[in-house]
Amino acid sequence: MRRLAIASAAAVLMASTVTHAAEPIALRDMGSFHVGGRLVVITGKPVKDVTFTPGGVPAKVDPNGTYQVEQMYVQYFLPQNEKGAYPLLLWHGGGLTGVTYETTPDGREGWLNYFLRKGWSVYNSDAVERGRAGWAQYPDIFKGEPVFLTTANPFERFRIGDGPGSYDPDPAKRKLMPGSQFPNEGYENFVKQNVPRWTTNDDATIAAYIAEIDRVGPCIILFHSQAGTFGFKVAQARPDKVKALIAIEPAGVGDPAKVDALKNIPTLMVYGDYIERDSRWPKIRATGVAFADAIRAAGGSVDVVDLPTVGIKGNSHMMMMDKNNAEVAGLIQTWLEGKGLTRK
Amino acid sequence: MRRLAIASAAAVLMASTVTHAAEPIALRDMGSFHVGGRLVVITGKPVKDVTFTPGGVPAKVDPNGTYQVEQMYVQYFLPQNEKGAYPLLLWHGGGLTGVTYETTPDGREGWLNYFLRKGWSVYNSDAVERGRAGWAQYPDIFKGEPVFLTTANPFERFRIGDGPGSYDPDPAKRKLMPGSQFPNEGYENFVKQNVPRWTTNDDATIAAYIAEIDRVGPCIILFHSQAGTFGFKVAQARPDKVKALIAIEPAGVGDPAKVDALKNIPTLMVYGDYIERDSRWPKIRATGVAFADAIRAAGGSVDVVDLPTVGIKGNSHMMMMDKNNAEVAGLIQTWLEGKGLTRK
Repeated sequence: MRRLAIASAAAVLMASTVTHAAEPIALRDMGSFHVGGRLVVITGKPVKDVTFTPGGVPAKVDPNGTYQVEQMYVQYFLPQNEKGAYPLLLWHGGGLTGVTYETTPDGREGWLNYFLRKGWSVYNSDAVERGRAGWAQYPDIFKGEPVFLTTANPFERFRIGDGPGSYDPDPAKRKLMPGSQFPNEGYENFVKQNVPRWTTNDDATIAAYIAEIDRVGPCIILFHSQAGTFGFKVAQARPDKVKALIAIEPAGVGDPAKVDALKNIPTLMVYGDYIERDSRWPKIRATGVAFADAIRAAGGSVDVVDLPTVGIKGNSHMMMMDKNNAEVAGLIQTWLEGKGLTRK
Repeated sequence: MRRLAIASAAAVLMASTVTHAAEPIALRDMGSFHVGGRLVVITGKPVKDVTFTPGGVPAKVDPNGTYQVEQMYVQYFLPQNEKGAYPLLLWHGGGLTGVTYETTPDGREGWLNYFLRKGWSVYNSDAVERGRAGWAQYPDIFKGEPVFLTTANPFERFRIGDGPGSYDPDPAKRKLMPGSQFPNEGYENFVKQNVPRWTTNDDATIAAYIAEIDRVGPCIILFHSQAGTFGFKVAQARPDKVKALIAIEPAGVGDPAKVDALKNIPTLMVYGDYIERDSRWPKIRATGVAFADAIRAAGGSVDVVDLPTVGIKGNSHMMMMDKNNAEVAGLIQTWLEGKGLTRK
């Protein structure tokens, strides 16, 4: 398995000590759009009177009719001084939204600002069923029930705490991973970022992400966790439009029968710390590494970086929020520069 | 009833002909946060095995436990050259999110960019239960069922089309209000912005908005439609922190017993066109106007502007998206300047 050289990690460490917080962000434009989705017809339901606002005037709401469903939301920020060769698309993980890449739960700058300040046009999105994408009736349209997470669940599952029972409402009483970089004091804010999810909307999500790429054009995709499946499968569907893939702890991978489609797309996989201490992450990582091997066997190029092996320690599954998030972003930025994906 | 003078409307018309699209937006910072909400404990439910990603590793999900609910999401943009005396908070209407104020459905700049370019620090938010705020289990936590809207519903209810039956999937066959400024060709994109809503979360929404104000500090609130109730009630709860209110077609009002709390807060109410043609809007407007009268009777100052009477015609309920949205924003900007709420 190829890994980034220690030398480049050292360069990253130096670069990450430069702070940008005081510099203004100059945008040539910012905005948003929805993309994708389909129309669904519902019939045979009774008409309701709905008073939308207390003291307001009741309106007839006929639930029968045509509904727009399965679209997604994209917010974009285009820097005045563009330095990326292609737009950078940020795709969040399961039960989350584009907020993942915004301000960290303890109030520091996230990867959205980081990459924007580095001169990338950044497209940050909410996938189908999440956040500003909206969601549809279930079980009429969405199948199955949504999943809600307790306040303790991500703490124990995302390698922030040291396994089951590590969470406590009192931050001082939590059993954090030793040397954890997660901002424990902001954990309550991270919990507020969680949104309900279904486990039945993968096809719709992939279709919407493809629609996003068809609209934006040639691009680089940085994707996290659940979006491992989406990032690789969408790249397999549009290999001509995806110029690089950055997989942050992918929880799923692409179609093993179509790895050939990925052979011309430089790919970086990044894993954090504590993988071996966890009950699930060794297998999840192994699935990702096996997929990387399959891409390489087809003639592709994949760099797998286990952060601790390049001296970056303490990272949880939410490394874009960890206290050293700029250091991890710096490693990605260095990789992108090394692949010739920045403008000279 | 006092109204803005025709002279100031003419000044607005001239100002609105100046385009800003080519100028960069310089931000000293941008970011987001969640605020408010509470913890709810659920007990007595069975544990589930959930495979979050196809091919992934099943995880135990115990639905019993503590849930974070009823928080809200706020995204902020702080201009490098600040000209507003206070931050400007944008609150969306029912079944919508902060996307209301972003790029219009036909791809033009929305009010978020407009006021940011005018030098306001803008805080755009998703209220409780909407968009990136997330939503909670029902009926366990949220009471009642969510309301979903057909593609036709907003067209016929927001004075875009000329009443029931005016919508058609084919844009060319729709019966628009005569002279409508709504971007009919972008209506499908507007439908994609709609998200499910409950009618039972007003108290939680008000609590979260109060938490937003307690965090941001002294501010001006621009609110739309359903948020009429929220804007006025929150101002009544925090009259010392609210420096001006801009009510865009408020669908509800504050507590009539507490109008005294609003007497020192300069207030602007704006109504669009076609009110009299609609079955519901004459009464909704009358409720707003009566509330304005009550505030004035308590010694307060409210300007009620019916846009057609100042020469601005064709506006739907979604005037922030209408083709003349910059003209309407210009009227608001002029009003704010007239109230001394911009820096000299």
